[in-house]
Amino acid sequence: MTAQTDHTSANARTLISVDAMGGDQGPAAVVAGCLISAEANPDISFILHGPEAELTALVAKHPLLAGRIQIRDAVGVVTMEDKPSHVVRTGKDTSMWSAIESVRTGEASVAVSCGNTGALMALSMIRLRKLPGVNRPAIAVLYPSSNAQGFNVMLDVGADIKADADDLLRFALMGMSYARNGLNVNKPRIGLLNVGTEEHKGRVELKEAHDLIRAHEAEAGFEFVGFVEGGDISGDKADVIVTDGFTGNIAIKTGEGTASLIGKRLREAFKYSIISRLASLLAYSSLMRLREKIDPRRVNGGVFLGLNGTVVKSHGSADATGVSAAIKLAAQLVQNGFNDKLAARVAAALPKEEPSPE
Amino acid sequence: MTAQTDHTSANARTLISVDAMGGDQGPAAVVAGCLISAEANPDISFILHGPEAELTALVAKHPLLAGRIQIRDAVGVVTMEDKPSHVVRTGKDTSMWSAIESVRTGEASVAVSCGNTGALMALSMIRLRKLPGVNRPAIAVLYPSSNAQGFNVMLDVGADIKADADDLLRFALMGMSYARNGLNVNKPRIGLLNVGTEEHKGRVELKEAHDLIRAHEAEAGFEFVGFVEGGDISGDKADVIVTDGFTGNIAIKTGEGTASLIGKRLREAFKYSIISRLASLLAYSSLMRLREKIDPRRVNGGVFLGLNGTVVKSHGSADATGVSAAIKLAAQLVQNGFNDKLAARVAAALPKEEPSPE
Repeated sequence: MTAQTDHTSANARTLISVDAMGGDQGPAAVVAGCLISAEANPDISFILHGPEAELTALVAKHPLLAGRIQIRDAVGVVTMEDKPSHVVRTGKDTSMWSAIESVRTGEASVAVSCGNTGALMALSMIRLRKLPGVNRPAIAVLYPSSNAQGFNVMLDVGADIKADADDLLRFALMGMSYARNGLNVNKPRIGLLNVGTEEHKGRVELKEAHDLIRAHEAEAGFEFVGFVEGGDISGDKADVIVTDGFTGNIAIKTGEGTASLIGKRLREAFKYSIISRLASLLAYSSLMRLREKIDPRRVNGGVFLGLNGTVVKSHGSADATGVSAAIKLAAQLVQNGFNDKLAARVAAALPKEEPSPE
Repeated sequence: MTAQTDHTSANARTLISVDAMGGDQGPAAVVAGCLISAEANPDISFILHGPEAELTALVAKHPLLAGRIQIRDAVGVVTMEDKPSHVVRTGKDTSMWSAIESVRTGEASVAVSCGNTGALMALSMIRLRKLPGVNRPAIAVLYPSSNAQGFNVMLDVGADIKADADDLLRFALMGMSYARNGLNVNKPRIGLLNVGTEEHKGRVELKEAHDLIRAHEAEAGFEFVGFVEGGDISGDKADVIVTDGFTGNIAIKTGEGTASLIGKRLREAFKYSIISRLASLLAYSSLMRLREKIDPRRVNGGVFLGLNGTVVKSHGSADATGVSAAIKLAAQLVQNGFNDKLAARVAAALPKEEPSPE
């Protein structure tokens, strides 16, 4: 816990460690994202990791970034094809490794990367290590919903492929902390994902997790709404959806695919005739409003929870808008002292737990 | 197998057993659905199950139905709240039980119901029994996709909450048969749902199922595309998505919820201003075309596979259009001799399997 507190005090200036490489759109999009964030938020500054000459040239184009970006030279790049185990063994020279290193040493308390998710998770686990009391870290995302805040938190969406009842309880606690500090929901409603809402339904570990989470409800300060179903991920019954990483990963990809199919069909429908093309011109601003509400670029960033430090995973395809959304989220979490609060929450709710020796 | 063949010959006239009760919109919507189907398809006739006096009055309003509906009196109704185990023990007088009984005795080879899914599955299992070689029956649905045929088959979406590698192989075989006979896809491409497409990813039973399905590919006449991800459920990489009932159930409900949120946001966007309201009038026919493509009422019906007889589960909220879509699907399956083909497929692909004693 001491190291954790040091992190925060060292970063009152909101210093964010950014991996410039590994995204589909290259370092120019990442620097452009930093620029958008720097314009919007004068408190943010950056440590940018990647090939020094290339980054220096990109940063020099934007006078506003002068004095707000330190460049940390790293010549290696983790590609989307690299196997996580390979990166962990041989990736010391990569920008991803370097970006996480800034969090490990306490220079920054959060890192942002558009790179290979598996490699980023593996490196984060090995270099940052798990918080005491956390067996499985989790990836949390914001999913568009009909809630007041417009989004639900869902976790785990793929850090691991399974979770037992104890893990699911920790996901609930970490998700609560994230909803408070990332979405400003003071008393989050937590739902446990299942195939039905009746208490007798579903797998054994889910029934066990149901009772465990219920038992921590009052002390931890969330509201447990019990089992929820797939339709509630985008609904308004809960603010945090707790599930294992296999189910969560399938669910978000199913949702993304379905949204993308509807978008495709909508464009086809508007291209059908001259009248429908005219209609689409008139409808343009309505459709843009729709896009703003459900545009994944505006809530870009899965967050790795349960480690000594926070890592924000931006979409691999993120453009400048996407990168700046991930940076905005990272900055908000730093400014709220999120990782310390999360660590304290997990520790406090599990008083009988022996601290992990790691 | 003998009983199965008898079913088919007895039903060359495409006699469909229809549960008139248990849907949210009552028996009038079911009779109206029968009417639409009877108008569209002169070969179909019905056995309608429910309270005789009520049904007689409803049917009498439509001269076209004269001589094409037999009414089977059943006074009990299975509600959405009834527990499956309770219905199995005490539901002999219900319209649902009676509708399945017509399939069990061979009068009809397919039943359609809008009622309680759990109760319908439980009754179907107990009364129709599993096909030889099938350990877990499955519920298959048609999911809107960017495929040529506009839909993928996905199974299991909730008959059970788990599936081992052998079950997943049978789901692949049953899904292939359903894609051929329900969607007219001659050589279906089968994908196994996982959190990544690399062969080393995912749970142990999935790796095992991967090899088992691969081994049956040539003999059974499908193309195995390997692991697919959540986004492929609505994509064009596979025609049949194989998964366990827990994951499948979460996935379809996530997809439905996401589609419904987008629809809600789209309506809000068009209500925003006078111009956007005007645009929505002009866009009306485009939006209707979109709706037609993705309207769940037009592909209404989960199908229970792996039993001695086919049961089509229509949405509980189905209106006349929804009911007639479920009847159309049921009729097509009967006319293609679907259940015999599926039984033969499962039996042929598993030659070393001892027939189940049930």
